[in-house]
Amino acid sequence: MSDSTVSSFSAQSSMNALWQARYGTKPPAQPLPESPVARSLMAHRSVRHFSPAPLPEGVVEAAIAAAQSASSSCNLQAWSVIAVRDPARRARLARIAGDQAFIAQAPLFLVWVVDLSRLEHVGHAQGHALPGLDCLDTFLGGVVDTALAGQNAAATFESYGLGLVYVGAVRNQPEAIAAALGLPPRTVALFGMSVGYPDRARPTPIKPRLPQAMVLHEERYNPATATDEASINAYDALLAASRAGGKAWSASVVARLGDVSALHGREQLPAALHALGFVLGKA
Amino acid sequence: MSDSTVSSFSAQSSMNALWQARYGTKPPAQPLPESPVARSLMAHRSVRHFSPAPLPEGVVEAAIAAAQSASSSCNLQAWSVIAVRDPARRARLARIAGDQAFIAQAPLFLVWVVDLSRLEHVGHAQGHALPGLDCLDTFLGGVVDTALAGQNAAATFESYGLGLVYVGAVRNQPEAIAAALGLPPRTVALFGMSVGYPDRARPTPIKPRLPQAMVLHEERYNPATATDEASINAYDALLAASRAGGKAWSASVVARLGDVSALHGREQLPAALHALGFVLGKA
Repeated sequence: MSDSTVSSFSAQSSMNALWQARYGTKPPAQPLPESPVARSLMAHRSVRHFSPAPLPEGVVEAAIAAAQSASSSCNLQAWSVIAVRDPARRARLARIAGDQAFIAQAPLFLVWVVDLSRLEHVGHAQGHALPGLDCLDTFLGGVVDTALAGQNAAATFESYGLGLVYVGAVRNQPEAIAAALGLPPRTVALFGMSVGYPDRARPTPIKPRLPQAMVLHEERYNPATATDEASINAYDALLAASRAGGKAWSASVVARLGDVSALHGREQLPAALHALGFVLGKA
Repeated sequence: MSDSTVSSFSAQSSMNALWQARYGTKPPAQPLPESPVARSLMAHRSVRHFSPAPLPEGVVEAAIAAAQSASSSCNLQAWSVIAVRDPARRARLARIAGDQAFIAQAPLFLVWVVDLSRLEHVGHAQGHALPGLDCLDTFLGGVVDTALAGQNAAATFESYGLGLVYVGAVRNQPEAIAAALGLPPRTVALFGMSVGYPDRARPTPIKPRLPQAMVLHEERYNPATATDEASINAYDALLAASRAGGKAWSASVVARLGDVSALHGREQLPAALHALGFVLGKA
């Protein structure tokens, strides 16, 4: 199918059409049960060109209510989120986070923060030290909490016709982000999220993904399907031909991971986390 | 409101009713814009009692298509998922993961895996070493990828009337889980997910969360609202009175983090990750 067709898919498209756009292959023989929620999620694309239109009232409150409704490990709720609307602050954060213009362009930049600070405070208030805070697993639980929350917010924004993009580049310079946002010790920005109405003049197509058989295993991990050469070659070709990709997947993996300089500072993350007050335990 | 009322809330309830159930307070003055997706997400509860009824055809394929449609850092797609249906294997995994009976009871147990193995294979196939794999940030990116995917799957399952619970206890003994599922080096189970129809005889109420003002900050992190004593006291009382909580939040934080023995082995996670082939870099 042509890319102009792909970019027209939306949550109003059929489950089968969205499957075809995502995988570039026919849907499975058994029918996919109808679900407006699944259609909305399957229609996701990362939007990097925004209209200047403001967000409607109440959408942030609804998105954060959905975020807080996500599961949380042991109900620790180990995250916070900073809503940055001020244009000057967004411009500054854009410079810190990889010079990405859309951070300054979109009316809202949410910074999703792993937050063990609140828990430390609760322990102190009860007169308890909390040695469990100094374990890698507790940090990881906070990362998962934050990501589940962020994804519920993302799904909610998209359900209102808004677009968004995750911004991992807030981890390029975590200490600079912390300083700009006044983050206390034991907190770190995990990802940002630019939110606004998509620029209709620059629509974004759906990005194809690896075949489902490469990521979904039955009963036990199957190394043969996970790294099937023919499937990787087919995906390389699909992505290279897509306006959303434009490059073979294998080549992009090597470009990202073949040299640590491509990580733009993120290779220093252990030192940054230490400086931000996290203790991740030792092997 | 009574707990029996709370447990009757569903994706068909109004946005305002779901807000009230989640926070125990009136919704904000500005109206929450209507969204069936947001209502479905806000109606989430962790289900731990399942009917033996099998899953309908096609729901797993749809859930994984939604999972793969979530954002992925640099499109690395650094995750896999194992669908465990065999009752004997579920019973074995239940024993490894904290003796939780619902893992054996629900017809499906999904194990969500951070997967850098596939990327390493892609590098080898192209004749490239990938030093970027040996960075904490790359592992964290995989954790975020996995969590975003898992949450899209969770939202899809719930949209079909299915229930689920996240199972962090797969990290109690990551090497035993890896052995049971044949996981290759550079993969680790991040969380499990039991999925099935909820047991109607044992409905689960919505669990109240911290007030939104404690987690949502405007422009900069506000330590005063993040740790507001009156808000924590009110939440402690709300949760203690709820059938979904039954205990003050502050007390449960101290119970979980006040002694590393409460982590049930997860304090050994750095060593387990090392044994599973991960190199997380040094501070």
